Amino acid sequence: MPARIEFGTASIPLDTQPSIAIDGHTSPRLDRAIDRFVARLSTYTGKSITRVTADSPEHAKLRIRCDGSGQSVQTPDEVESYTLQVSSSYIQIDARTTVGVIRGLATLEQLLQREGTGYVFPEVRIEDKPRFPWRGLLIDVCRHWQPMPVILRNLDAMAAVKLNVLHLHLTEDQGFRVESKRFPRLHERGSDGQYFTQKELREIVAYARDRGIRVVPEFDMPGHTTSWLVGHPELAAGPGPFEIERHWGVFDPCFDPTKDSLYAFLDSFFAEVTAIFPDPYLHIGGDEVNGKQWTSNAEIQAFMQKENLPDLHALQAYFNRRVAAILAKYDRTMIGWDEILHEGLPKNCVVQSWRGAESLQEAVRHGFDAILSNGYYLDHQRPASFHYANDPDPTGTTSNKPGTARILGGEACMWGEYVTPATIDSRIWPRMAAIAERLWSPPSVNDVNDMYQRLERVSAQLERVGVLHVANYQPMLIRLTNGQPTEALRVLADVVEPVKFYNRSNSQTYTSRTPLNRLVDAARPESMVARKFTAQVERFLSSPSEHSEDQFAIRAHLSQWKANHANLLPVVRSSPMLAEVAPISQNLQNVATIGLEVLDRFVANQPAATEWEKHALKTLEAAATPLAEVELAVLPGISKLVKTAGESR
Amino acid sequence: MPARIEFGTASIPLDTQPSIAIDGHTSPRLDRAIDRFVARLSTYTGKSITRVTADSPEHAKLRIRCDGSGQSVQTPDEVESYTLQVSSSYIQIDARTTVGVIRGLATLEQLLQREGTGYVFPEVRIEDKPRFPWRGLLIDVCRHWQPMPVILRNLDAMAAVKLNVLHLHLTEDQGFRVESKRFPRLHERGSDGQYFTQKELREIVAYARDRGIRVVPEFDMPGHTTSWLVGHPELAAGPGPFEIERHWGVFDPCFDPTKDSLYAFLDSFFAEVTAIFPDPYLHIGGDEVNGKQWTSNAEIQAFMQKENLPDLHALQAYFNRRVAAILAKYDRTMIGWDEILHEGLPKNCVVQSWRGAESLQEAVRHGFDAILSNGYYLDHQRPASFHYANDPDPTGTTSNKPGTARILGGEACMWGEYVTPATIDSRIWPRMAAIAERLWSPPSVNDVNDMYQRLERVSAQLERVGVLHVANYQPMLIRLTNGQPTEALRVLADVVEPVKFYNRSNSQTYTSRTPLNRLVDAARPESMVARKFTAQVERFLSSPSEHSEDQFAIRAHLSQWKANHANLLPVVRSSPMLAEVAPISQNLQNVATIGLEVLDRFVANQPAATEWEKHALKTLEAAATPLAEVELAVLPGISKLVKTAGESR
Repeated sequence: MPARIEFGTASIPLDTQPSIAIDGHTSPRLDRAIDRFVARLSTYTGKSITRVTADSPEHAKLRIRCDGSGQSVQTPDEVESYTLQVSSSYIQIDARTTVGVIRGLATLEQLLQREGTGYVFPEVRIEDKPRFPWRGLLIDVCRHWQPMPVILRNLDAMAAVKLNVLHLHLTEDQGFRVESKRFPRLHERGSDGQYFTQKELREIVAYARDRGIRVVPEFDMPGHTTSWLVGHPELAAGPGPFEIERHWGVFDPCFDPTKDSLYAFLDSFFAEVTAIFPDPYLHIGGDEVNGKQWTSNAEIQAFMQKENLPDLHALQAYFNRRVAAILAKYDRTMIGWDEILHEGLPKNCVVQSWRGAESLQEAVRHGFDAILSNGYYLDHQRPASFHYANDPDPTGTTSNKPGTARILGGEACMWGEYVTPATIDSRIWPRMAAIAERLWSPPSVNDVNDMYQRLERVSAQLERVGVLHVANYQPMLIRLTNGQPTEALRVLADVVEPVKFYNRSNSQTYTSRTPLNRLVDAARPESMVARKFTAQVERFLSSPSEHSEDQFAIRAHLSQWKANHANLLPVVRSSPMLAEVAPISQNLQNVATIGLEVLDRFVANQPAATEWEKHALKTLEAAATPLAEVELAVLPGISKLVKTAGESR
Repeated sequence: MPARIEFGTASIPLDTQPSIAIDGHTSPRLDRAIDRFVARLSTYTGKSITRVTADSPEHAKLRIRCDGSGQSVQTPDEVESYTLQVSSSYIQIDARTTVGVIRGLATLEQLLQREGTGYVFPEVRIEDKPRFPWRGLLIDVCRHWQPMPVILRNLDAMAAVKLNVLHLHLTEDQGFRVESKRFPRLHERGSDGQYFTQKELREIVAYARDRGIRVVPEFDMPGHTTSWLVGHPELAAGPGPFEIERHWGVFDPCFDPTKDSLYAFLDSFFAEVTAIFPDPYLHIGGDEVNGKQWTSNAEIQAFMQKENLPDLHALQAYFNRRVAAILAKYDRTMIGWDEILHEGLPKNCVVQSWRGAESLQEAVRHGFDAILSNGYYLDHQRPASFHYANDPDPTGTTSNKPGTARILGGEACMWGEYVTPATIDSRIWPRMAAIAERLWSPPSVNDVNDMYQRLERVSAQLERVGVLHVANYQPMLIRLTNGQPTEALRVLADVVEPVKFYNRSNSQTYTSRTPLNRLVDAARPESMVARKFTAQVERFLSSPSEHSEDQFAIRAHLSQWKANHANLLPVVRSSPMLAEVAPISQNLQNVATIGLEVLDRFVANQPAATEWEKHALKTLEAAATPLAEVELAVLPGISKLVKTAGESR
């Protein structure tokens, strides 16, 4: 939602040969942005839409006025504002920078709508600029490898919702994902052959820059470094040899921060990677050092005494100061997770908070720029509404002036323990679009129902842009049913959600080799069917006589769910991978049956018997226990029906 | 279908930690093949299946005996035979080469089946070897660019059905798809930036070799060379400048075969590409030279007189002899399309026939090895049964001895005018599997119904292997409906097929920039729903009283199709891309209505009135005209109903 928008009443039909004029600054980057925009119109409409260069701005249908390119390397201070005016005769985008124009084109693309048998842009006047200068998505390519196509299509989707930072989590216990020419053993021994070549990394950076997106690389240290140590055990605080980690969690292997040779190594390594990543920021992680290798190493203990470092936190602070000094040589500002916050940390460092709003405020109070990630963990499988309500600066009181300590914005985190290239898109999208709006739009834009309505439309748009959050659903169901019809499984899969937070790790021992192609992987983090059902229940109960159409819809849903188990059972029998699914399907039948009974009673104004109500509550409670790592997302709606019927008795 | 197979009655359950022993020759390539096999079992079953190395062959569940690696560069004479024995206690694969083991593992993977709540391999004894040594798929990456993922996933699918040649059509009027370090203007100016780097080409070759697949590169010349001439107009027979061709067809630009500088250029170019492609064969195309640039060039005409070359064919023969001599320097055997066949062509050249069985026999009579492609054109959108009946050697009389002129086998062609990375898989698969069987199995394996039954199973397997012929269907429907429900569109799309042969080019002017995302692109070349419907009609009519279940199925189909139009209309109204679809949907309703009426009459033994029959035939005839470039595939079945009812009257 733009900062300011006024709709008119006219509309301008889409031209299959739109004449386009650029007034003022032009560049190949701007040109490519316009080409992409035009190509997208072709895909959307199925017509060959060809760009025509207008002989003068006055004759063009799309007029772009751009003051200048903007920064040669984009920073958080890049101006992204633009104005967009669609009048009945032409469309005008004005911006100070190329990135501003790119944002304007993204908005214009969203405005295209069907009218009759064709497409039109509505008359509109928009003045727009972002609320926060740092609007990011972290992708962990380490726990599970995410190859080039995943990154590139997600950059396209990010650009569509005006995100401007791709944070690549490039090294972890489970994998070192960057080609190093100086230290080839890093990727050769630490990656199972799954890493980005330097050419590919440059392609990612260029692809992102074309879309007004910065790429911030993260090299997590001194912990989370097992994969470095496979090829370079001499960097470790504990004895080797080391192997690529296959499990999830916090592990002991850690750099030895007392050795000068470590800093020489890192200096050389940062020289290499800063030549690839031009962004002024570089992330050094810094999280979850368990300290075991430090505590059990006599030399490190002696060093701490000698240097007057009272505890492990002080030792890590020492490490961070030395790393920050190296990065300063390469003109890079250091970013780290909460744990890097300590006395003596250079004030230009940035703190990324995974712990929460309090530690965010604490960082700013201590004079650091800060980025919020707590509340934006996409792997927690929470609904869009939850993330949407999570404001980096709820009081709106912190400074937003460069040079003062400020909340820069936020970053959603797509941690990779339970995602593959086939499932990652559905874990990021469409929920990420709600976070993008929280970070771009004014805080007053906070109507959840309105957000969900627009999210549905944006979700379809993102699919066209190229991410596969919708496309990959049906194939997973096809594989699960082993060639049997998928309809009954889809009815079930549509109303279950993966367990939340870290609960998946409780149920079985996962390793990086465990297949992720079960129902829990096909199921979406937020069931849109269940969300709408709950909304129908609430609307109906609020005034039953006025909302008979909701009653019919509720009844249709419940009937379908009740009948579905019988349809699904033969499919389950022919596919062993679905054996775990049968009890959930049975639960869905049970709770749908209860829903139908209570709906009948409610409509007939017949109070439920105490015995029946006991049975109903017990059934609902039993169904609330996750099975096969999924939850039934329709329980809140049905519970509401039962509870309200109980109250009305 | 293997050459020889005997099933037993026992079965051996799938082990989640299968112990594997290799007896005899071992190699990293063999090892990777086993790793892929085990990983595929994981994906299929959703369980973590981990390979365990048995301490001795006697204790292993899977025992592999391999005599040697096979050829360092695979040729058509590579031994691919193997025996596979599944007994109740262990599985044994014996082969002379690594490729033989790879073929055996592909068969073993297909044997895995569900039993109860788990998976088993059935007791079986197989002795297997291919009928033809050349079993290929041509992918045209020029008319539309097909990037790395398309190639790699199709190599996986090829290996699953034991194909052994990937023929890459790498240069065309519309694109030069190979990075040349010696002549960088070739790919820089001739490809729109869409080409394989040399590193990528080496990756394709290595990936293919791992799967027992040869990669034969084609550089089409002297015609079909516009993209070469963009950067190197000096090679042309006519005046430049040249631009990358955007249309489809046969074009004038052509090499000038009279210049020595052309051969020096090609010598240098072949030196470069033969270092990338180790295969002993290299394809020079040679097709469709229209000769206009040769006829209108006075110097070329003078050259022909001087050299006593009576016609254009003789001039092309001169060109071919010189190119063959260059290729011989690099130990490469030249392949070309039919047109290269002429007096004086070196006898070790290979002729690939796109024209037909006659020209194939002619080539062999003239002493050349030959490959059949006529009848295997996947872009013609014909049914699997058509290709399955197309035998390269129907009389089985030609020699199969190396060193004598022989029919080497066949190659299916996936020409690229109307395919994108999103649709190419559904144009290749599953029909390609039927061709693969024709080329591998004995000629006596020719039961079409049996083939279709197995094809359905193989299609699901191929999806797991990684091709997207099923997966990409639903997303295309989602985009077409513009976010509306897809069910009604799917009912229609399930029973239409794209127009056949080259009829698509008649209906509108296509260029390489025309979007290919309409109904015709979503529809599959062969409607499996329509095929089954026709079979039901035939079975029912053969003995109506015995096949009442078919009558019910026919009625259910017809009722669904009749009702579908009303369901689809609101969706059509909300998506302009579907406007063209409404008349087809109306036709489906019309013919389904007729089908229901005639079925009622037939069952009630009521003869149809002459007037009604006239109307029925007229309606069917009207519906037979393709609309929006698709055909209604249910017409044969319904026509049969009407016709038989007429006869019975």
